[in-house]
Amino acid sequence: MKFNTVTPDILEALAAIVGQQHVVLPEATEQMLRYTHDETEDLHYEPELVLKPANASEISSIMQLCNQNLIPVTPRGAGTGLSGGALPIHKGVVISTERLNKIINIDERNLQATVEPGVITQVFQEEVIARGLFYPPDPSSRGSCFLGGNLSESSGGPRAVKYGVTKDYVLNMEVVLPSGEITWTGANVLKNATGYNLTQLMIGSEGTLGIITKIVFRLIPYPSQNLVMLVPFKKEEEACEAVPKIFIAGIVPSAMEFMERDAIEWTNLYLGMDITVPEDVQAHLLIELDGNDMDILFKDAERVYEVLESFNVGEMLIADTEKQKTDLWLLRRNVAHAVKHNSVYKEEDTVVPRAELPTLIRGIKEIGTRYNFKSVCYGHAGDGNLHINIVKGEMSDDDWNNKLPEGIKEIFRLCVGLGGTISGEHGVGLVQRPYIGIALNEIQLRLMRGIKDVFDPNGILNPGKIFRTNAEVQEQHKESLLTDLI
Amino acid sequence: MKFNTVTPDILEALAAIVGQQHVVLPEATEQMLRYTHDETEDLHYEPELVLKPANASEISSIMQLCNQNLIPVTPRGAGTGLSGGALPIHKGVVISTERLNKIINIDERNLQATVEPGVITQVFQEEVIARGLFYPPDPSSRGSCFLGGNLSESSGGPRAVKYGVTKDYVLNMEVVLPSGEITWTGANVLKNATGYNLTQLMIGSEGTLGIITKIVFRLIPYPSQNLVMLVPFKKEEEACEAVPKIFIAGIVPSAMEFMERDAIEWTNLYLGMDITVPEDVQAHLLIELDGNDMDILFKDAERVYEVLESFNVGEMLIADTEKQKTDLWLLRRNVAHAVKHNSVYKEEDTVVPRAELPTLIRGIKEIGTRYNFKSVCYGHAGDGNLHINIVKGEMSDDDWNNKLPEGIKEIFRLCVGLGGTISGEHGVGLVQRPYIGIALNEIQLRLMRGIKDVFDPNGILNPGKIFRTNAEVQEQHKESLLTDLI
Repeated sequence: MKFNTVTPDILEALAAIVGQQHVVLPEATEQMLRYTHDETEDLHYEPELVLKPANASEISSIMQLCNQNLIPVTPRGAGTGLSGGALPIHKGVVISTERLNKIINIDERNLQATVEPGVITQVFQEEVIARGLFYPPDPSSRGSCFLGGNLSESSGGPRAVKYGVTKDYVLNMEVVLPSGEITWTGANVLKNATGYNLTQLMIGSEGTLGIITKIVFRLIPYPSQNLVMLVPFKKEEEACEAVPKIFIAGIVPSAMEFMERDAIEWTNLYLGMDITVPEDVQAHLLIELDGNDMDILFKDAERVYEVLESFNVGEMLIADTEKQKTDLWLLRRNVAHAVKHNSVYKEEDTVVPRAELPTLIRGIKEIGTRYNFKSVCYGHAGDGNLHINIVKGEMSDDDWNNKLPEGIKEIFRLCVGLGGTISGEHGVGLVQRPYIGIALNEIQLRLMRGIKDVFDPNGILNPGKIFRTNAEVQEQHKESLLTDLI
Repeated sequence: MKFNTVTPDILEALAAIVGQQHVVLPEATEQMLRYTHDETEDLHYEPELVLKPANASEISSIMQLCNQNLIPVTPRGAGTGLSGGALPIHKGVVISTERLNKIINIDERNLQATVEPGVITQVFQEEVIARGLFYPPDPSSRGSCFLGGNLSESSGGPRAVKYGVTKDYVLNMEVVLPSGEITWTGANVLKNATGYNLTQLMIGSEGTLGIITKIVFRLIPYPSQNLVMLVPFKKEEEACEAVPKIFIAGIVPSAMEFMERDAIEWTNLYLGMDITVPEDVQAHLLIELDGNDMDILFKDAERVYEVLESFNVGEMLIADTEKQKTDLWLLRRNVAHAVKHNSVYKEEDTVVPRAELPTLIRGIKEIGTRYNFKSVCYGHAGDGNLHINIVKGEMSDDDWNNKLPEGIKEIFRLCVGLGGTISGEHGVGLVQRPYIGIALNEIQLRLMRGIKDVFDPNGILNPGKIFRTNAEVQEQHKESLLTDLI
């Protein structure tokens, strides 16, 4: 990939587009710092400059200029990503969408909303709840992440098990292509059989096909009641086995979260909470039911109880005050922070058909024994989406850097063998890219590379992410031929 | 598009792949007849031959041979399409998926099913209901249509309003590409953030990108109870206006179907049923609520009643026997047949944000007055998806063929102006292709053409559908240059 650097002339032209006050340069060390990383491990990459445009038209001008001059452009939301998708590894320009932060319209007649990509997920959720409406997707970082980033990484969250993920709420979006062209991807409708689904193609493309500048979401009526249960299991695997049984009993909980013993204990400590975990408990399920009628929810809870009784469970806790519910969710949402606080770690975002979770967990522990790593597992059991925090602990730097990747490969091969894949909701980005060949075959990669070339013939948009582009493959091929000659 | 015809040598090779008994040639007039049309108006196109392969491997061999020899291939499901998607307009080979008709596996642990594309939708639905599970998409033709066709045309049906359309249940599929390569598009998981979404790209691509040979669906628990209401409105527009109000009241019905007075009367007559429509009734809403508890459904029905009371409605009918429910649905599902039986007609599949339905209906009637056509409207009001049956009646052939298309353009422009598009669930296929420029701009078309070239560089797969390919555009450009020279 032969990219150019930003010359003084180009810098001047870029600054003229967004206004000097919306440019961040490396000399502004402190300001620049936050744009050099996301929430992925401890990776840092500094761009040549950061631009904070105000709208699609400015982004279009930036893209045209960068495309003509072969300058890499990395789009960035709030920087809460967990796969390094927003890191400018080829330097160039970072486009931050932080100033595109308007909720343009909440259309209560049509149960639709049009927003800019820089709106914080929770801010949007609260705005729609205030109108009796519901936007269900709720990634753990919802208090700080942007909706545009949620789309780019195909984010999920606990409620996906009942309500689906981000992609299931997107009707249409406005995007700026690498050429600078601005277009909508679809129409503002619930059903669309008019041409290829560009909307769904853009979602989860991790900012490699275009930059999202407007999003039209569908909304649903807000379920006014809920009920949260914490269920301790004496055996980790039984916690996973219980999950499909609840669905088969005809109940679709609005969340069904799995936490290993360590996940709760570390988070308890991290948050200074006072949840005690009995010694014989190996894991917990956090189960939420929602709806409009508490009587029905209690009925459903009884059916869940009946299912759980056939397992080796401890005393179940039903949160019946708002405070208790909030505390339980606070606990769940802070597991990743707690583990991070405790040790250097790597987080994997595995996903399998949900009944295969026990096999996956058994496999992870067995691989951990062989590679000598400890793991803390938690995640969205209802979706078969298990986050594995691999803790460095006492592992040597050498083993961490050189031996562990082989262990991760084994975990991913296990997932794929179980009908799953290597990322459920974090994206491939930079850190899973070396493993993409485990999940995708050469035919799939060829199709994706071809699509990338259609959207971004010069390969300037978020280079180095997900998979090697055709240009990268060719370059590597040339290099290997040269090496052969020498 | 310079395609080749099937030579005797190629015919022999193709017959060797599938076996002579699975080849249909034009001389077998009666056998061939059913492959020359679908359910779209009265169009007929005869292929050079029809092949009925048994599996992906045979389809792969056929594709390789046809790709090498530039012979057009048109994939075909049950032939119930309403946009001419399965018509072999460039002749060549039709591949019928009728022998790929196995339900391979219903995985009750994971609430997933793997099926071949030639399974009839209703057969599959009944198989999963027998296990207490639910596959909600239910196009009107569900008694005869194939699941593969449902995917190809992004089919919906009445229940989409609560449960979503076909695309919302597809986790993964196996496809044969024009090159003959066989690949899966994704993984068998509920969440997937691993590369571009090839699964959703294939859905609704109307057989132009690959041939589906296996599908993995997700299933949900079956709601065991339901309740059906027929609500007569004195004003057509009020029937549409009531729809968003019901959602805003917090109720999500499992169906919400709109039928104009004529739709009911003609169908009543067609089926020989005895539903009388009072003279002052202009339209009906058929509303279905579903769940697991009749008490809750009656509570919800009361809330629906409260909403409806603010409109000018006649006496509402609640179907409380299975027979009554079946009759009401029989009525709804037979509207298209009844209109077809009554007159030559064209069916349009418009879709708008649901609150814009009254404006759409007003517009259609006004356009009808100017172009002198009568229309019978009905469809999925909950989704804003209105089927417009334009009845030929007394219109002259000349007006029908030459003036009407201008009227249709006006209808489509109105839809797009309201935030909608030209097909909600039937696809663009052959008959809407002349209008595609109303719904899609040149940027979108360029992206789609590029994607088509990535999957099908020789353009052999279902040519002539949805949009003009790059090859067609270039050819037309050359022709117009030649014309200019002369």
